[in-house]
Amino acid sequence: MASNGFGQAFRVTTWGESHGPAIGCVIDGAPPRIPLGEADIQHDLDRRRPGQSRHTTQRREPDQVKILSGVFEGETTGTPIALVIENQDQRSKDYGEIKDRYRPGHADYTYDAKYGIRDYRGGGRSSARETAMRVAAGAVAKKVLARRLGNAFGVRGALVQVGPHRIDRSRWDWDEVDRNAFFSPDAQAAATWDGYLDEVRKSGSSAGAVIEVVASGIPAGLGEPVYGKLDTDLAAAMMSINAVKGVEIGDGFAAAGIPGHEAADEMRMDGDRPVFLSNHAGGILGGISTGQDVVVRFAVKPTSSILTPRRSIDRFGAEVDVLTKGRHDPCVGIRAVPVGEAMMACVLLDHLMRHEAQCGPLGSGG
Amino acid sequence: MASNGFGQAFRVTTWGESHGPAIGCVIDGAPPRIPLGEADIQHDLDRRRPGQSRHTTQRREPDQVKILSGVFEGETTGTPIALVIENQDQRSKDYGEIKDRYRPGHADYTYDAKYGIRDYRGGGRSSARETAMRVAAGAVAKKVLARRLGNAFGVRGALVQVGPHRIDRSRWDWDEVDRNAFFSPDAQAAATWDGYLDEVRKSGSSAGAVIEVVASGIPAGLGEPVYGKLDTDLAAAMMSINAVKGVEIGDGFAAAGIPGHEAADEMRMDGDRPVFLSNHAGGILGGISTGQDVVVRFAVKPTSSILTPRRSIDRFGAEVDVLTKGRHDPCVGIRAVPVGEAMMACVLLDHLMRHEAQCGPLGSGG
Amino acid sequence: MASNGFGQAFRVTTWGESHGPAIGCVIDGAPPRIPLGEADIQHDLDRRRPGQSRHTTQRREPDQVKILSGVFEGETTGTPIALVIENQDQRSKDYGEIKDRYRPGHADYTYDAKYGIRDYRGGGRSSARETAMRVAAGAVAKKVLARRLGNAFGVRGALVQVGPHRIDRSRWDWDEVDRNAFFSPDAQAAATWDGYLDEVRKSGSSAGAVIEVVASGIPAGLGEPVYGKLDTDLAAAMMSINAVKGVEIGDGFAAAGIPGHEAADEMRMDGDRPVFLSNHAGGILGGISTGQDVVVRFAVKPTSSILTPRRSIDRFGAEVDVLTKGRHDPCVGIRAVPVGEAMMACVLLDHLMRHEAQCGPLGSGG
Amino acid sequence: MASNGFGQAFRVTTWGESHGPAIGCVIDGAPPRIPLGEADIQHDLDRRRPGQSRHTTQRREPDQVKILSGVFEGETTGTPIALVIENQDQRSKDYGEIKDRYRPGHADYTYDAKYGIRDYRGGGRSSARETAMRVAAGAVAKKVLARRLGNAFGVRGALVQVGPHRIDRSRWDWDEVDRNAFFSPDAQAAATWDGYLDEVRKSGSSAGAVIEVVASGIPAGLGEPVYGKLDTDLAAAMMSINAVKGVEIGDGFAAAGIPGHEAADEMRMDGDRPVFLSNHAGGILGGISTGQDVVVRFAVKPTSSILTPRRSIDRFGAEVDVLTKGRHDPCVGIRAVPVGEAMMACVLLDHLMRHEAQCGPLGSGG
Repeated sequence: MASNGFGQAFRVTTWGESHGPAIGCVIDGAPPRIPLGEADIQHDLDRRRPGQSRHTTQRREPDQVKILSGVFEGETTGTPIALVIENQDQRSKDYGEIKDRYRPGHADYTYDAKYGIRDYRGGGRSSARETAMRVAAGAVAKKVLARRLGNAFGVRGALVQVGPHRIDRSRWDWDEVDRNAFFSPDAQAAATWDGYLDEVRKSGSSAGAVIEVVASGIPAGLGEPVYGKLDTDLAAAMMSINAVKGVEIGDGFAAAGIPGHEAADEMRMDGDRPVFLSNHAGGILGGISTGQDVVVRFAVKPTSSILTPRRSIDRFGAEVDVLTKGRHDPCVGIRAVPVGEAMMACVLLDHLMRHEAQCGPLGSGG
Repeated sequence: MASNGFGQAFRVTTWGESHGPAIGCVIDGAPPRIPLGEADIQHDLDRRRPGQSRHTTQRREPDQVKILSGVFEGETTGTPIALVIENQDQRSKDYGEIKDRYRPGHADYTYDAKYGIRDYRGGGRSSARETAMRVAAGAVAKKVLARRLGNAFGVRGALVQVGPHRIDRSRWDWDEVDRNAFFSPDAQAAATWDGYLDEVRKSGSSAGAVIEVVASGIPAGLGEPVYGKLDTDLAAAMMSINAVKGVEIGDGFAAAGIPGHEAADEMRMDGDRPVFLSNHAGGILGGISTGQDVVVRFAVKPTSSILTPRRSIDRFGAEVDVLTKGRHDPCVGIRAVPVGEAMMACVLLDHLMRHEAQCGPLGSGG
Repeated sequence: MASNGFGQAFRVTTWGESHGPAIGCVIDGAPPRIPLGEADIQHDLDRRRPGQSRHTTQRREPDQVKILSGVFEGETTGTPIALVIENQDQRSKDYGEIKDRYRPGHADYTYDAKYGIRDYRGGGRSSARETAMRVAAGAVAKKVLARRLGNAFGVRGALVQVGPHRIDRSRWDWDEVDRNAFFSPDAQAAATWDGYLDEVRKSGSSAGAVIEVVASGIPAGLGEPVYGKLDTDLAAAMMSINAVKGVEIGDGFAAAGIPGHEAADEMRMDGDRPVFLSNHAGGILGGISTGQDVVVRFAVKPTSSILTPRRSIDRFGAEVDVLTKGRHDPCVGIRAVPVGEAMMACVLLDHLMRHEAQCGPLGSGG
Repeated sequence: MASNGFGQAFRVTTWGESHGPAIGCVIDGAPPRIPLGEADIQHDLDRRRPGQSRHTTQRREPDQVKILSGVFEGETTGTPIALVIENQDQRSKDYGEIKDRYRPGHADYTYDAKYGIRDYRGGGRSSARETAMRVAAGAVAKKVLARRLGNAFGVRGALVQVGPHRIDRSRWDWDEVDRNAFFSPDAQAAATWDGYLDEVRKSGSSAGAVIEVVASGIPAGLGEPVYGKLDTDLAAAMMSINAVKGVEIGDGFAAAGIPGHEAADEMRMDGDRPVFLSNHAGGILGGISTGQDVVVRFAVKPTSSILTPRRSIDRFGAEVDVLTKGRHDPCVGIRAVPVGEAMMACVLLDHLMRHEAQCGPLGSGG
């Protein structure tokens, strides 16, 4: 029911199939009088675009976004913002052979089980192409947040693991993220991954990844107990991204292994400002932001489209072997970095607006 | 906005504070003509009730649930089911001293930052006491699911890690879960945890835990791409439970480290029935159930109320030390097992109903 | 689906049957730090209470409301406010005879057609008793609105027609409304209605009514095009009241007969303040408040429970005659006045909060 | 908040401004495997299209709809259906002069009060052009309903009043509706209106109208008490249409004047089938369909754009006179007929789906 949208106050609904005429989204609820142009959105789309490194799909599309409504004379009007990207490089022929076959790890079987029909071209609706519209919506959210929260605000993502290879957190350098093709904050890890992915591709296989997204400059007080918690909505937002199998906040699963006297973040005053002495909580307590960095990580499984033949069935019940040719990222997790950033921005803006609906202007509560 | 409820078709809204007169919930959308009595709900509540082992809080309350509406002559009527539990053992005096102090790891500071006011008695709304109503709602969901899905259906939870100590999955025995005070499927792990928690308590600290919940007998086809995915809603449901910091489906974070040719579950036919040869996906592909067991795990941080003094501030900005006396579980994760089961049941029923709204009776799609 | 609640930011969910143990509601999203006590709510409930005139049901219940959560030390906390009223004067025996019979004009047949079961005692969920919780929620909304909008704010309702007898609008006197048993702004009409209803009751029949509700001190800018318009939500709110068959805004149906050059409200400046020279629009243009009084009218059909025998069927398909004994208002429309006021208040608060979520503090937009 | 969409199970979100590049909608939740092509939608759009009679605007646009997603090989897939119509005949120059002026009766002033900005070209988002997408969505809903409910199902609308001139209901002929330019079921009324509108236009004024929409073949049981009633949602749906000021179900406002012994519809058996002996209720009791025709009427105010100068102000606070040139329907109510039909179809389908979510396949309840 209305499952192709997310957010309450800042609501994004996406539509479109990988190989249909276009993909798009409608943003309902964006604040008025925010300067917005196609270039603002295009910048973020370009970060996600395929074909930028040897390790992302060679499908080359300009992914040129158009604003069809909700912006007038360079500013948002408060009415729905409709965004659309036409699909150009479709190459339907690549996909004909998997028309009736269920590719292991993909949603082919489950879409058929649910709907009794599916658009098999390039995965149809289940393709990661849908995430382009998340990035577009996130770009709008970031514009609004920047205006509301000022210069301290920022959302940044990084790849922290590829296959079994993790970064060394002591080498974390945000500036490095834009210097390599992996959004890696650790240059050495990027080098390791480069070699590893070459091997993986040569062997006809693929690799998973872990992404970390950090939001800074977030005021305390965002989030709504007990089912609309900030972490609840972040978990949902990240888990809804294709191929994601796990989400954690702050220490996440590691928190289960830490004793209680180490796990809780202590507080002190810094002049007249409360400060936390650590951030195990990832910036969220009781579902509400603490004023520290909000930290989320999510795990992406290896790309399911691989050149190694795998056992499967077709929709007529025959046993078959499936091998997926075509252009596929050996590690879809890489391009999930800007997607995770976008989802973080959308959730934060939605909660900022929800907070102000109930509690009034930010900072008036305490 | 309306953040104290979850679910679309089977919607649960909870209310109540830890030390107010009562807690309760309203279930809106339950199917009619399902036999339901207070005993059905009480059974599940008793599994969650405190005071059942040395390792859960000694607060002793009968937690007697009353049905105030929506059931007539022993059957649901399709109108809202209101459930209420009166709070009896309140001992407000235990909590007076933390009235103005922010307990580290708790939501005290963030509630004040958001609302400018909080019910400090026993954590007020942020207390895990709220989860009793989740268990109550889950009991109703299970009754409906059992009727719809038949004997094959079941939802079971187990504790798989306490502090740094994990179970040995090769010893997994579901029958064992009801035989120990930890919901452990591994008797040896239960023994280890027993000793470990004694130590932890003696040292004035606490421990985290990981819970695994498995649903069986779930048909293929439940779940709605792309933002109302089954795993999206499960992630939100589990993350909304107090103290949860991470959620994973199937292989979860481990999936990031596995090569692609091992990660995807292969398929074959078993007579005329499709079967999967493994369940890395945890029963969900593209957000839709595969027909395999649905497997979710979530991590609970250590209890924040501990006897070790911790640095904090009060609401006037003074630096203080906080130490939490009173009756507290050294490992809140134990009692999270029935809560996780309940959330799984609610999410599954919600999706079954949503599926039938769009696609018609189960099994008619394929 | 979650159909027992209304409102987005200020969300009210009601539960309970006419002759069950209690009725209640949960208010999710109320702003924090609003002074609120049971007396605030009781005052409005007493206006709606039955047994206050010869023309309302003699069922006598104190309708004593209890606040079970969401208020701490006399102020709202921002968490859900649970309200409950125990049912005391139930007299189930009055209703036993209509257990299997479908009373004409009532929801007996349709509940059975939908759910296959119904709580027949006093109409169960379809009883107007449910509206007590609307009045309770409205009292909370009014407290918040008064605080936000100041002294200029007010919501007032009046009865403007009973059966075929309308008030003379030239005699409209708001002070008169509290002086008669009909909420009539026209003392002469009240006298006419008094005699008319005596006749109607003697003849074993009943009468319909039209209610007008006016909100003053409402700023321009509330309402959300194009499906969340202020008038859209008001129409839904009023139509959801038992026995309502029509809703109109401003001139309403009469607007269809007026030429265009008379229908649109002209504007001029009053100093530096825009003013309208008439209010045909009822204070709403394009779904957004104009700053004028918001004016809504709704029509209530005659009470369906009458002493005149009527042809019907029972649930076994037998033809029967139905005559409803017991205590019933000959004109349910009278007690609908405070219900209409309450719904107006809830809708306005919801829109005020939604406006501030998107557009910031009131008055900052223009 | 997400106010540009309506419906829960069958959810329609519209976007677009009158003179932007395009208008469109996203339908989220449509059942899969329903045959659907652009021609199905175009047929209904053509009924609403301007320029078809002397009494509708001469703006001539083909209003050619394109399906951009959600349909594959001629059938719906269960994923979002995106529809778009490009705006071709824009003539922006017509509207430049009202850029800063608030046209009486229009939403110019209120949009500015709310958002501080508005797209003044042709009314922007508040233009009745938005209703084209309602008609498009309604065409999809009708396809689904026809498949689910069979041949007995139908939704038909008619104009029953123009200015002060009502039809004679004794002459009602559904076949006549398609034979005149007014959707009038009474040929004589159509002739009267033709002359009347000529006068009205010559005098530089405009006329209002009342529309009646009737749905047949609707099973008993659709609708959800107590806030998601079928009549509640119909009232909201109709009131959300541009210029609508009143909505009524069945007898509507007239019900207030009828005595109770005439108002309630009696029942008898017709063989083994319950039948009602009248339809004062308009097919809805307690918010749930009775199985009779569902009957809704709504009032449309006169077109606000007229050639007679009217007093107003501009956004700088100067007093001005406004006269609206350009191509405008003297009676916008005429083209509201297909819009009302479309809204009826969308609401009915939404409720059919919601019913099946909770109560199972239609007809299984009783």
